[in-house]
Amino acid sequence: MRNASHPAPAKSLPSHPFDPDDDKLKEECGVFGVVGVSQASNFIALGLHALQHRGQEAGGVVTYDSTTGFNQARRMGLVRDNFTSAETLALLPGNIGIGHVRYSTAGSKGQTAIRDVQPFFGEFSMGGAAIAHNGNITNAVALRRELIERGSIFQSSSDSECIIHLMARSMGRTIPDRMEEALRKVEGAFSVVAMTRSKLIGCRDPLGVRPLVLGQLGDGWVLASETCALDIVGADFIREIEPGEMLVISAEDGVQSHFPFRRRKSRFCIFEHVYFSRPDSSLGGRSVYETREAIGRELAKEAPVDADLVCPVPDSGTPAAIGYSLESGIPFAMGIVRNQYMGRTFIEPSEQIRNMGVRLKLNVNRALIQGKRVILVDDSVVRGTTSQKIKEMILEAGAASVHFRIASPPTVWPCFYGVDTPEREKLLAARMTEAEMTAHLGVDSLKFISLDGLYRAVGEPGGRDPKSPQYCDACFSGDYPIVPSDKIEAGFKTKEPAE
Amino acid sequence: MRNASHPAPAKSLPSHPFDPDDDKLKEECGVFGVVGVSQASNFIALGLHALQHRGQEAGGVVTYDSTTGFNQARRMGLVRDNFTSAETLALLPGNIGIGHVRYSTAGSKGQTAIRDVQPFFGEFSMGGAAIAHNGNITNAVALRRELIERGSIFQSSSDSECIIHLMARSMGRTIPDRMEEALRKVEGAFSVVAMTRSKLIGCRDPLGVRPLVLGQLGDGWVLASETCALDIVGADFIREIEPGEMLVISAEDGVQSHFPFRRRKSRFCIFEHVYFSRPDSSLGGRSVYETREAIGRELAKEAPVDADLVCPVPDSGTPAAIGYSLESGIPFAMGIVRNQYMGRTFIEPSEQIRNMGVRLKLNVNRALIQGKRVILVDDSVVRGTTSQKIKEMILEAGAASVHFRIASPPTVWPCFYGVDTPEREKLLAARMTEAEMTAHLGVDSLKFISLDGLYRAVGEPGGRDPKSPQYCDACFSGDYPIVPSDKIEAGFKTKEPAE
Amino acid sequence: MRNASHPAPAKSLPSHPFDPDDDKLKEECGVFGVVGVSQASNFIALGLHALQHRGQEAGGVVTYDSTTGFNQARRMGLVRDNFTSAETLALLPGNIGIGHVRYSTAGSKGQTAIRDVQPFFGEFSMGGAAIAHNGNITNAVALRRELIERGSIFQSSSDSECIIHLMARSMGRTIPDRMEEALRKVEGAFSVVAMTRSKLIGCRDPLGVRPLVLGQLGDGWVLASETCALDIVGADFIREIEPGEMLVISAEDGVQSHFPFRRRKSRFCIFEHVYFSRPDSSLGGRSVYETREAIGRELAKEAPVDADLVCPVPDSGTPAAIGYSLESGIPFAMGIVRNQYMGRTFIEPSEQIRNMGVRLKLNVNRALIQGKRVILVDDSVVRGTTSQKIKEMILEAGAASVHFRIASPPTVWPCFYGVDTPEREKLLAARMTEAEMTAHLGVDSLKFISLDGLYRAVGEPGGRDPKSPQYCDACFSGDYPIVPSDKIEAGFKTKEPAE
Amino acid sequence: MRNASHPAPAKSLPSHPFDPDDDKLKEECGVFGVVGVSQASNFIALGLHALQHRGQEAGGVVTYDSTTGFNQARRMGLVRDNFTSAETLALLPGNIGIGHVRYSTAGSKGQTAIRDVQPFFGEFSMGGAAIAHNGNITNAVALRRELIERGSIFQSSSDSECIIHLMARSMGRTIPDRMEEALRKVEGAFSVVAMTRSKLIGCRDPLGVRPLVLGQLGDGWVLASETCALDIVGADFIREIEPGEMLVISAEDGVQSHFPFRRRKSRFCIFEHVYFSRPDSSLGGRSVYETREAIGRELAKEAPVDADLVCPVPDSGTPAAIGYSLESGIPFAMGIVRNQYMGRTFIEPSEQIRNMGVRLKLNVNRALIQGKRVILVDDSVVRGTTSQKIKEMILEAGAASVHFRIASPPTVWPCFYGVDTPEREKLLAARMTEAEMTAHLGVDSLKFISLDGLYRAVGEPGGRDPKSPQYCDACFSGDYPIVPSDKIEAGFKTKEPAE
Repeated sequence: MRNASHPAPAKSLPSHPFDPDDDKLKEECGVFGVVGVSQASNFIALGLHALQHRGQEAGGVVTYDSTTGFNQARRMGLVRDNFTSAETLALLPGNIGIGHVRYSTAGSKGQTAIRDVQPFFGEFSMGGAAIAHNGNITNAVALRRELIERGSIFQSSSDSECIIHLMARSMGRTIPDRMEEALRKVEGAFSVVAMTRSKLIGCRDPLGVRPLVLGQLGDGWVLASETCALDIVGADFIREIEPGEMLVISAEDGVQSHFPFRRRKSRFCIFEHVYFSRPDSSLGGRSVYETREAIGRELAKEAPVDADLVCPVPDSGTPAAIGYSLESGIPFAMGIVRNQYMGRTFIEPSEQIRNMGVRLKLNVNRALIQGKRVILVDDSVVRGTTSQKIKEMILEAGAASVHFRIASPPTVWPCFYGVDTPEREKLLAARMTEAEMTAHLGVDSLKFISLDGLYRAVGEPGGRDPKSPQYCDACFSGDYPIVPSDKIEAGFKTKEPAE
Repeated sequence: MRNASHPAPAKSLPSHPFDPDDDKLKEECGVFGVVGVSQASNFIALGLHALQHRGQEAGGVVTYDSTTGFNQARRMGLVRDNFTSAETLALLPGNIGIGHVRYSTAGSKGQTAIRDVQPFFGEFSMGGAAIAHNGNITNAVALRRELIERGSIFQSSSDSECIIHLMARSMGRTIPDRMEEALRKVEGAFSVVAMTRSKLIGCRDPLGVRPLVLGQLGDGWVLASETCALDIVGADFIREIEPGEMLVISAEDGVQSHFPFRRRKSRFCIFEHVYFSRPDSSLGGRSVYETREAIGRELAKEAPVDADLVCPVPDSGTPAAIGYSLESGIPFAMGIVRNQYMGRTFIEPSEQIRNMGVRLKLNVNRALIQGKRVILVDDSVVRGTTSQKIKEMILEAGAASVHFRIASPPTVWPCFYGVDTPEREKLLAARMTEAEMTAHLGVDSLKFISLDGLYRAVGEPGGRDPKSPQYCDACFSGDYPIVPSDKIEAGFKTKEPAE
Repeated sequence: MRNASHPAPAKSLPSHPFDPDDDKLKEECGVFGVVGVSQASNFIALGLHALQHRGQEAGGVVTYDSTTGFNQARRMGLVRDNFTSAETLALLPGNIGIGHVRYSTAGSKGQTAIRDVQPFFGEFSMGGAAIAHNGNITNAVALRRELIERGSIFQSSSDSECIIHLMARSMGRTIPDRMEEALRKVEGAFSVVAMTRSKLIGCRDPLGVRPLVLGQLGDGWVLASETCALDIVGADFIREIEPGEMLVISAEDGVQSHFPFRRRKSRFCIFEHVYFSRPDSSLGGRSVYETREAIGRELAKEAPVDADLVCPVPDSGTPAAIGYSLESGIPFAMGIVRNQYMGRTFIEPSEQIRNMGVRLKLNVNRALIQGKRVILVDDSVVRGTTSQKIKEMILEAGAASVHFRIASPPTVWPCFYGVDTPEREKLLAARMTEAEMTAHLGVDSLKFISLDGLYRAVGEPGGRDPKSPQYCDACFSGDYPIVPSDKIEAGFKTKEPAE
Repeated sequence: MRNASHPAPAKSLPSHPFDPDDDKLKEECGVFGVVGVSQASNFIALGLHALQHRGQEAGGVVTYDSTTGFNQARRMGLVRDNFTSAETLALLPGNIGIGHVRYSTAGSKGQTAIRDVQPFFGEFSMGGAAIAHNGNITNAVALRRELIERGSIFQSSSDSECIIHLMARSMGRTIPDRMEEALRKVEGAFSVVAMTRSKLIGCRDPLGVRPLVLGQLGDGWVLASETCALDIVGADFIREIEPGEMLVISAEDGVQSHFPFRRRKSRFCIFEHVYFSRPDSSLGGRSVYETREAIGRELAKEAPVDADLVCPVPDSGTPAAIGYSLESGIPFAMGIVRNQYMGRTFIEPSEQIRNMGVRLKLNVNRALIQGKRVILVDDSVVRGTTSQKIKEMILEAGAASVHFRIASPPTVWPCFYGVDTPEREKLLAARMTEAEMTAHLGVDSLKFISLDGLYRAVGEPGGRDPKSPQYCDACFSGDYPIVPSDKIEAGFKTKEPAE
């Protein structure tokens, strides 16, 4: 059902065609939970703010307080605009709560309705529970069909709502039991935070595709998608939740861990290193920033070129560009400047203005670029639309030559594990070879890091183990560690098995 | 679960203690549906506007269009503020739809969350359906408990949501079949409008406690709580839906009627005649205005008094005051004036201002009242707070004497059939005799119409049939035609049976 | 200059063509001032709310507090929506202040910009002053031209801003002196309230065209356009300000009166009795309600007709209809019902809906009207558009005959003294005789009260003194007591002098 | 007069104490004008967006169209939030217009009222004119006093409004003549854009303290504070307006230049190079980015130190940090990460949360910093509050040592030429020596670039000419090229003349 209640986004004009952020893969969610602190909603607001890069379209918070019961707020837009007023926070009392930020899917996919915003809440005979989910359930269509047939009423179009309905139909005696039972029926990638009146629950799927970390905050506990959300609330990082692990945490009993699923080898999303996670978060004990710098160094080794300047495509290309510069000795420079006052949308310029070359988010440092041979470092190429525009800007500013260096291998397969990817035929690298892309973009050279190079940079000195890859790299390799069954039912063709 | 998403009402200050509308019984809902017209949402907006007196807190609309599917908008506030923009109506395309307005419950009962706003929607294996309900389900607590135990997830705290879950669990092959099955499990008073992709459905409970009428609009059909909502869209009044009748209406097949419940004698709510319905609506072929005038005439016969002026407590007391004046020959006058720019809330005056006698909604016509013996005609006395304040205003303006005449019998029992009534101990007439009330209010006289007098005025020349009353008059008599089972479970004590 | 800063009204759709309130003369302003009370802004908000009928488009408040200086708030919309929050009132501290409500001029005249909203403020060498004005300056165009030539910068398009610029250029030593000097240069009708840091000033033009009353509130003083604004704050009515009188009021020295202008015979606006003032206000010691009832009685004497019901066109025709009923003995009935939830604008229905006969603000009580001979009493006929629609509604509901009785003489001349009147050619009575209007409207009869009858009803037993009329009745007689010089310069032709 | 009309900012909580942007000097304005293009308001919105860093509190636009006349919109907040809707831009038609963005002054200075937002408009006998101003009038208090004495009514508290009143009182025959006359009476720093119905006017004060550039856009012309605003609309940079030059530009006659003031040696603000201008703007033919990199190189030469990493305080310290790294050979790294979703305000954390070390805008890259000797490069030290907090963050993350390097000399004097500076006693460097500051901040070392070093870096190889400095550097030197007469009258003490 389409929801017309919140037409606010309709007022803002469509985002400008040349929005460099439009041509990225998008992480679809960030989650945060806390127990054992006073005024939990304050911490959740801060934590979600730190995770805003994982989802800008909407956010939701649920808290529990013994006087008012469960309290919920769900809003379209940024955390800073929705969850910062004393008025709102006062409506969310309690010492336990969870929150969620959600990615803005592109126009063609339809606007998110407020009823699709997580956390989802359900009342069970033993009490209420709320759940928020980062990832994607790959058998959600089938589960939903079956649940509806048996009498469940879905309130959203979200795959995550299946979990709460599975819990409702479970015969488990406690909510954690029901959640375990529900998650065992679910396929896909999931990092879940959930809550009851007194317990905070965290769980990662058996492959650990999406991140989830545990922190300590005084006597309380925090779960979050990334460590940067621990930093913002001043929590100490304890450890990453393990793949297939479920934590049940309460103020009284602390952290209880168990492993409800069959143990399997981890397949963490390698793209979290490349783009999704914030550079100041830590993954596997190393800062994401350093990993990206290492990717840039690796890229400089694999794809050197003689030039005057190494410029990042801001902001995400910056660490890799620094690494490339350090390795190659070619000076690093901010040849492209990002307007920090840019919102997510802006005036759709009239035809006339557009043809004059409007640059809303990015501007070239003309005087700097003029006559120079420029290496542009970007994290990835998706549709290639941004790369094309940036090349035009750089050449129009008088660069002598333009060399693209990409800090990830060619993106040739869609992700079905909680990332918004264009259809395969829209992925530039799925349609062209590197040489064709170079010609198509009209640049002097274009090189991607190799998949082995990327593995080396993220800390696998031997590169990728083709028998049993250490990461999920399906977007590069087409090697899907979890069968995307709903998609296959809908006609998606996986890679021909190599003979 | 409390919903913090829509704190807008929190900005407006609490309603002034002397708000004459606060001390009324409140009808809790109005419903409207239409099929077979283009731009159904336009008609629904108009119809709900005409029914706004039945619920001012929130409104909702669902329409269906083959391109966009089911579309929904639910908003806190008045129809005129929420459903009048071309932007909103454009988001609600289609030739079929239903709508609902909802009463604003008092602060102590907690704010309505947006998720409690009807219509409710459910997706079934044979397609979607939406439902809106006027009335109250008296076994909702028990039904809800059972449904939750069996795995249903409730999204609201509304009793009406039970119906959609019962439908989801029904094995009926069509949506009307499922609705029939669901309504047979439901006890209470209900006038329901519902819709599928192509069918508009209307149904009244077996006693027909709440009203529902059918109208024709060109080739299309309209269901509405009152005839005034037919007038506003230019529809012709066809007939009232009969107690226990279900209509299934489509553009192709017109109106199909059947009676899914055991036939019983009608017990229409007599208070619809006294206060709830709009004076320009028709009930049983007579305008509500004329009925109220007749009540005033009856009251003048039962409770005459020598005086100079008959003044209504505006606006609801006006027709009865005119009737009293016509019968008694004492001139009718607007001694109290209502500020037409009053919203539902206003500044909470500081203590200082309050003590000076602020009058926000009502003002006395001092020059007119001065030295006069005044009969004040009001429709009912609930807590008695308003009566007291009005008496003070009138005396302070210099009236020689004040006589209250009330166009309904003493309200001594709460209503459990879709009306918001204070607890029994808050009802003035439940605590005092007529003489005690006269003394308590400090007026020269106070008289209520008798229950038989009221029955005569509404068209029962023989008065009330005590064996088998023609109307539901539980609020006056304590004679509840439907057992309020949830309330009894919660401790409510019904009247001792007369021996 | 057109101001695009406040496009809020653009969101609401244009007012419905059949808005009975559109076809009225409109008083353009209401003023209120208070000194010597704590939290003056609370009183001003209440007072302006009581005067809302004199202007619904915008409101403004200025207060002075020794800590924060002069504080101002000006807003588009109703008092209840803009001046009721504790937040807003806290921004308006102080024990002295003035306020203004402003009429919504029709679309063709262009939207009021926020900068046209009064009070106007000016900083002079001896301190600041604010001023609010009800009326119209008939030589404003000439004054403005001259002031601009001499270097004044106008910030608004309002005629009232001239006063503050004339004060700025005055050599007077005190602000009251400067105001006196300014007002002596001004022609037209004006009831002004103004304030300095410690003084509240009130002044009426020499003819006293517009009303202004003085009240006492504890140790403080109130000025207001009507007595209903004294009632709402609990102030005692002291007296009307006299024509040509200026009051300078302070908490310390009380009320000082003087008469800065040449004394002339009063010419109070007779239309205040007919329509502008609220029925619960007093004018000349009698309630406006009673005067209107007397007009109805006079009308019944002058224009009797045999009928079954006397119905008011609500709400303004009600008192005259009651008078007509009392005099004629024909029963009074509310045959037309007004929707109390109507805002100022509503959905512009599509062509299709309009043709079906949508009735947003008014609905006929069909069952009551059916087969009856109906007398409709309205206060005035301006363009005649409303009368036509109401007649159609009444006949379509089955009335046997329709007789219009109008509680004022034919409106044939525009008002230039602070009332919004259509151009002369749009006034129905300026284009047609009574017989022609009867035919044009298609009613069974149409009668206006005579000018002498109106004078008798307002308390002049000898009727109008043609040599020296007791009231300003220019809209009926074309006899303009103040030469409308700007209008004449712009081409307006006054009545040929009777020979 | 305080204006309570726009309390919107009151809803957002006060900015967090640790907002690194709070401890900066703030440019107070940016201006933009265009003539000879269709839909001028589109270009103005884009241009103001590019200049948003020069003022984030409010923006205003005036355009002229022969049908609608002058049109104005003024709003609190960012350009992207206020001037991007088709609705707003449609209210601003025309081929000529000007715009202004305004800095948010700190709380202690009081909130900007909407009436203080530029452009200002005045109607003269020969037509209207609007004016927008970047800079500050140093004799505004005296001018204002005199103008009020002679009868001018000021509508704002802005110094810039003097110009329009001086124009109103001028006897000049044309608007450019009047503007010339007005500007000759004005002392201070000003870059002005103004407009009549057909002419765009630009003017810089005789010393050229603030920037202003001319661009060409097809057949039209653009004036803007910086070249980045030419880039965004696709205009070609033509040249900088010269100090003391006035341009009168029309679509018909092109650009007319003259010099109304006595010619003097230029004293451009050197801080535009350091911080105010955007890095992608050009000043004097060189990109600001390169100049800042040169400042960093100079700083590395003047103040070397042995360390592991050079980290910028983001974002403004980045180019200088890169320069420092390139010169010193110490690797550049993003040790501090800025949250790009930060708005201007955020939740005021409760005491508890604050003490836990909340970091809303900035976060340290802990894993990167741990155990490292870190050089932090910032553009300036104002109060020193940010430096202190950043040092704490870095040390708490485990840095081995912290060395501050500042890309400007110590800021010891306030600016009176259009920059918001704290009072002298709040400037850290005015109270302490470098050694005292090092101790106060608790860092291992702290070094500022020398004034001569800064001059060298901005392109004066011989350093500062003490006899006749090439720039305005009053904030560093106390050498005020324009006497701040209002401030001196108010008690400000300038530097003792060196003997």
